[in-house]
Amino acid sequence: MSDDSQDEDDRAPLASLRERIAQAVRDVKSTTPLAQSFTNFVTINLVANAQLAAGGTAAMSFLPDDVIDTAAISGADYINVGTLLPFYRDALPRIARAFHKTGHRWVLDPVAAGIGETRTEILRAFRATPPTLVRGNASEIIALTSMWRLADAAADGASDKASDTASDTASTRPAGVESVDEVDAAVDSAKRLARFLADGTPDGKAAVAVSGAVDLVTDGEHVYRLPGGSALMTKITGAGCSLGGVTATYLAVAEPLTAALAATLLYNRAAEIAEAKSDGPGTFQVHLLDALWNLTPEQVAESAIVTQ
Amino acid sequence: MSDDSQDEDDRAPLASLRERIAQAVRDVKSTTPLAQSFTNFVTINLVANAQLAAGGTAAMSFLPDDVIDTAAISGADYINVGTLLPFYRDALPRIARAFHKTGHRWVLDPVAAGIGETRTEILRAFRATPPTLVRGNASEIIALTSMWRLADAAADGASDKASDTASDTASTRPAGVESVDEVDAAVDSAKRLARFLADGTPDGKAAVAVSGAVDLVTDGEHVYRLPGGSALMTKITGAGCSLGGVTATYLAVAEPLTAALAATLLYNRAAEIAEAKSDGPGTFQVHLLDALWNLTPEQVAESAIVTQ
Amino acid sequence: MSDDSQDEDDRAPLASLRERIAQAVRDVKSTTPLAQSFTNFVTINLVANAQLAAGGTAAMSFLPDDVIDTAAISGADYINVGTLLPFYRDALPRIARAFHKTGHRWVLDPVAAGIGETRTEILRAFRATPPTLVRGNASEIIALTSMWRLADAAADGASDKASDTASDTASTRPAGVESVDEVDAAVDSAKRLARFLADGTPDGKAAVAVSGAVDLVTDGEHVYRLPGGSALMTKITGAGCSLGGVTATYLAVAEPLTAALAATLLYNRAAEIAEAKSDGPGTFQVHLLDALWNLTPEQVAESAIVTQ
Repeated sequence: MSDDSQDEDDRAPLASLRERIAQAVRDVKSTTPLAQSFTNFVTINLVANAQLAAGGTAAMSFLPDDVIDTAAISGADYINVGTLLPFYRDALPRIARAFHKTGHRWVLDPVAAGIGETRTEILRAFRATPPTLVRGNASEIIALTSMWRLADAAADGASDKASDTASDTASTRPAGVESVDEVDAAVDSAKRLARFLADGTPDGKAAVAVSGAVDLVTDGEHVYRLPGGSALMTKITGAGCSLGGVTATYLAVAEPLTAALAATLLYNRAAEIAEAKSDGPGTFQVHLLDALWNLTPEQVAESAIVTQ
Repeated sequence: MSDDSQDEDDRAPLASLRERIAQAVRDVKSTTPLAQSFTNFVTINLVANAQLAAGGTAAMSFLPDDVIDTAAISGADYINVGTLLPFYRDALPRIARAFHKTGHRWVLDPVAAGIGETRTEILRAFRATPPTLVRGNASEIIALTSMWRLADAAADGASDKASDTASDTASTRPAGVESVDEVDAAVDSAKRLARFLADGTPDGKAAVAVSGAVDLVTDGEHVYRLPGGSALMTKITGAGCSLGGVTATYLAVAEPLTAALAATLLYNRAAEIAEAKSDGPGTFQVHLLDALWNLTPEQVAESAIVTQ
Repeated sequence: MSDDSQDEDDRAPLASLRERIAQAVRDVKSTTPLAQSFTNFVTINLVANAQLAAGGTAAMSFLPDDVIDTAAISGADYINVGTLLPFYRDALPRIARAFHKTGHRWVLDPVAAGIGETRTEILRAFRATPPTLVRGNASEIIALTSMWRLADAAADGASDKASDTASDTASTRPAGVESVDEVDAAVDSAKRLARFLADGTPDGKAAVAVSGAVDLVTDGEHVYRLPGGSALMTKITGAGCSLGGVTATYLAVAEPLTAALAATLLYNRAAEIAEAKSDGPGTFQVHLLDALWNLTPEQVAESAIVTQ
């Protein structure tokens, strides 16, 4: 379970993964790729600023004609279902269909999955035209997996605990945008979800990132745990959303697993630096953006990655 | 009129009030209550960050199904009519009716009351399903009281000045979101409004908070003036809105008078600390969030409170 | 082409222009004029905070009844077409017609001009009721000029390069919100556009501001280049939008050319101060707001202005 306990077979792939992570961070800084976002009104500014600070460029849109037109020049898109308006019920499935048709890569952030009839309808519709990558907290990942009926415990011998949790949406109802579940409870759901996503992509590659005390990333086969970060991340709004946006920025230059790992590692290192410099959540957010800007590809890629 | 001039009868209740204020601040920090907001797009990020910095959690929603579903797990709600969209005309009254039906506590921020036909229609509709607490500047409180026809001077012997002001909406038309009236001009309106609100709540408790150079809070009987704060509060956008959001956070754990006092005192102390550390409105906002996070229940509760 | 190479005839008007710029900055600080904005959701908070930091007041609205009602008490308006919602298609032309009818001054920020059918329809409609001032990057200015069919090279002997660029929208398609063209490529378009705008205003005065490595402002006759600023401006979201909002703040107290120059000079000086104090884009934005607040009328007016 620790970085040191890996056998020889695991070490080589991890070294190769670290190289791909460093390359993704480097490529974003050198090519300033555009990642477009359809995101909530609370944290839309931080999403854009975080994408810029990571080295990319940002465009935010809501009208299907605008989003679909801009997607032609964006490397990847980010969709966050945080604050819904009435027209999203038709617009979001329409946008997802357009992305699916052209094989355009996108990150879904299923904020507050399980709350509200409209959100549930939109998230259910995405099943037919799934994203390349899903990033959320444990409750959201479990709720989405359940909503998409991917939670058949018999299929892969999930632990009783995880399958119980996943099959019982009532018990995993998110506390608003806060997770009520621990990351470990979402491992099984995250793996199922990643495999389902991979089945829907042109190149068979997909990933799921679960944010929590120890973040988790999986491509459906391997599970990577990324320790560190800062508890102050939960005391500013948009830490998760802006991580989702930056994940789309990396997805514009790298395959899903690398993008999810690079973005989460960048965030954890930036959060640690920001916490050391801050006197509270106000200064923390400011220093977080500075740290996203200043971290080197090497600092990101050399972070601790714990394989199972 | 000053803290020191109070007679013995007043001192005891004030000491009890201070205890309740300290307890509210403490309870928010220890229980991280969720307060949901339906608020404007300008300051929605600061509202959420201020609620988090005060120790609570935040969720922002606009669709009635989403808002009503989330209200089931939120301790109180905050509604701010700053930036309206067409669908709010039906959505906001519908949401207010749902809150009223279940006795769900909510704070109304009647931003720019008196401007725009749609805003007037929405604010008029709220009269039938009133909030637990109203927070606004003097012009907004006067405009809302007039709009709800609570400004009958004969009813409680209001001063000529105040009743003239309250009955003449033309003269009190807000200068956009800026108040053109001083807090003192709104005392009578605030008391009438608080009594009207109290008549509509299950437990007969309500409060009105008027923001200005010297803030004022009333439960309809007693009037409390809260000196201090910083003039820089008017040089950042969202000082008032985020105070409204934090008031909802305290309303999730305390009765309305205590919630309004605790939030306003917290803000005034935080503003003073932030002003001392800042070189302008940019650094002021950052240090304001830090101070909201770092202030102790005792620092908030021991603030000057001036009773009449 | 440089400040020093100007002949005697040019020096006198420039001195007079500097006096008007200093007066505009002074008038905003002393009269706190209201400028209303209909702007995008990404940077709406920074627009308001920048207007406040420059010394003005801010109000943001989206509903036509709200916008038109508030315009009666605002000195000028700012319209930014960054993030569109479905109802804007009718609302924005309706608002522009109301402004035109009353001769109300407004600044247009044609963000991402050329992308999306709805944006194109809205921008085309504005041709019949044009703004007083347009601010954008080079690609946006070229795209708008082309969209309004102002790019007839024969009319004023534009250089081949500029007219080719202006007549070929495909080659000048903006990269999202980023400019793909240099400011120099937009000189001809900016002048044509400014003359077209001037023809539509009650007093025949208008201006166009082009943001880039070296900013450019023109009233259709004279061209002013404003060197300086900071590359970090492109690493925060909303530098251009908030400059547009502050331009509207100055337009509330000064004629268009003076307003465009004052706002751009203020921004360039503030950006230089902020860059010197910052460790990245997070601290840069915070210090930018402080600098907007602290710069004096003289510091702004004494900036380098390069005439042709």
